[in-house]
Amino acid sequence: MTCTDLSRQINTNNNCLCIGLDPELGKIPKHLLGLKDPIFEFNKAIIEATKNECVAYKPNIAFYESLGRKGWESLEKTMEVIPSTHFTIADAKRGDIGNTSKKYAETFFETFDFDAVTVAPYMGEDSVRPFLEYSEKVTILLGLTSNAGSENFQKLKLKNGSFLFETVLKEASKWGSPENLMFVVGATNAASLTQIRAIIPDHFLLIPGIGAQGGDIQEVITKGKNSEIGLLINVSRSIIYASNGEDFSLKAQEEAKNINAQYQSLLG
Amino acid sequence: MTCTDLSRQINTNNNCLCIGLDPELGKIPKHLLGLKDPIFEFNKAIIEATKNECVAYKPNIAFYESLGRKGWESLEKTMEVIPSTHFTIADAKRGDIGNTSKKYAETFFETFDFDAVTVAPYMGEDSVRPFLEYSEKVTILLGLTSNAGSENFQKLKLKNGSFLFETVLKEASKWGSPENLMFVVGATNAASLTQIRAIIPDHFLLIPGIGAQGGDIQEVITKGKNSEIGLLINVSRSIIYASNGEDFSLKAQEEAKNINAQYQSLLG
Repeated sequence: MTCTDLSRQINTNNNCLCIGLDPELGKIPKHLLGLKDPIFEFNKAIIEATKNECVAYKPNIAFYESLGRKGWESLEKTMEVIPSTHFTIADAKRGDIGNTSKKYAETFFETFDFDAVTVAPYMGEDSVRPFLEYSEKVTILLGLTSNAGSENFQKLKLKNGSFLFETVLKEASKWGSPENLMFVVGATNAASLTQIRAIIPDHFLLIPGIGAQGGDIQEVITKGKNSEIGLLINVSRSIIYASNGEDFSLKAQEEAKNINAQYQSLLG
Repeated sequence: MTCTDLSRQINTNNNCLCIGLDPELGKIPKHLLGLKDPIFEFNKAIIEATKNECVAYKPNIAFYESLGRKGWESLEKTMEVIPSTHFTIADAKRGDIGNTSKKYAETFFETFDFDAVTVAPYMGEDSVRPFLEYSEKVTILLGLTSNAGSENFQKLKLKNGSFLFETVLKEASKWGSPENLMFVVGATNAASLTQIRAIIPDHFLLIPGIGAQGGDIQEVITKGKNSEIGLLINVSRSIIYASNGEDFSLKAQEEAKNINAQYQSLLG
């Protein structure tokens, strides 16, 4: 599934919600823990309940690999139950020297058949290139993240007068096209979206940081939207952990519906 | 195993060699391919043949995860055959928001029992903190990497007059101590080691980029060594792929011996 397909889904459904799948054994409903693969059963129920409320799913790879082999199995099975109409993102924040990034690209684009993977920019162009070489896949590069640590380096002022994250966006936008390259911009940094859109008017933005992290959705949509919407807004914890009772999937659906109603009124 | 233990091993043996375990099915000897777990069998033979020639092993996680569940199994089994006298590094280049970095730290420090893990700095302090919270473990942060892409962002000049990588080293050195925090400095950037040692005189440096990547070992040791040596020099491909015949482990041993003889004469 390409950015064009994703954009079509978003505009047809007036829906830009991505649901983050960050399952933790300590947080999922207790009645699932006796099943053979609680993580998969949790994801499956969440996906079944929310698939009409979102256009994308974003498994956060840390939550699977921390469980070792079993976690990778849960991830494999989860990928099988995500409908093909939905865009899939491996939130992995990978990036290494060329021959190693090539292996990470193989992991997420071949071993798993994700549509997209998140990548860290610190190691520069040749660390990102192997992901971009998959013309039917999407590389999502960190621009300005949602966490407090985005202040440490991303907002350093460069000699050329711009912030580091602005130069990252500007340089990296030359490496790929809006069709195969997106950027992560955290909702907690929504105030910067106007200047970001001046640098990359046409690229999709993946926006985490709404919900548990406290970003302002109105500001995100007002400042971040472009003529084709161009936004994929991720919510994880406030949807998937809306309840930890037996009604968890129903409550997740309700929360996704509420969030969507709010987004749709803002998208206009 | 802590940095103090590692330093003792290095100084006792006058040996600072780390061997990178980057096994690829397309590159390992063909006679192993019929075995049940060729990747593990390859690693096991390499470890058995080289353990007296090095003080550390560094599995490159991309090469395992690209094989899916089976790769993680090979990695688990590999960890079991690395002698407890050797320092183990998960070369993973992870880093994400706090709750996610916590899961990555769990992966490498608990699910696997690595002594150290490599971490990317772009997301700042709170993305690194969960790794540093393991007081008996070591976080290895990217400083100045060995690849061409280190020019893109790491060598940008900041408004304060320093390069980005210098500010990363300076800031991050406040987050941990030389006991729980190391830095990656690529051998291909050995010319910068004098200025790097002025910023972080006491921290261990993990040096990739010797061998296949072409870094200058003499310059690395002359400029990078401190009073306790403080260097862990990684070589991967030129040792593990010294031969792809039935003599592969013997040739790997010979190559490791040659490299070590050269290092030892330079270490003095």
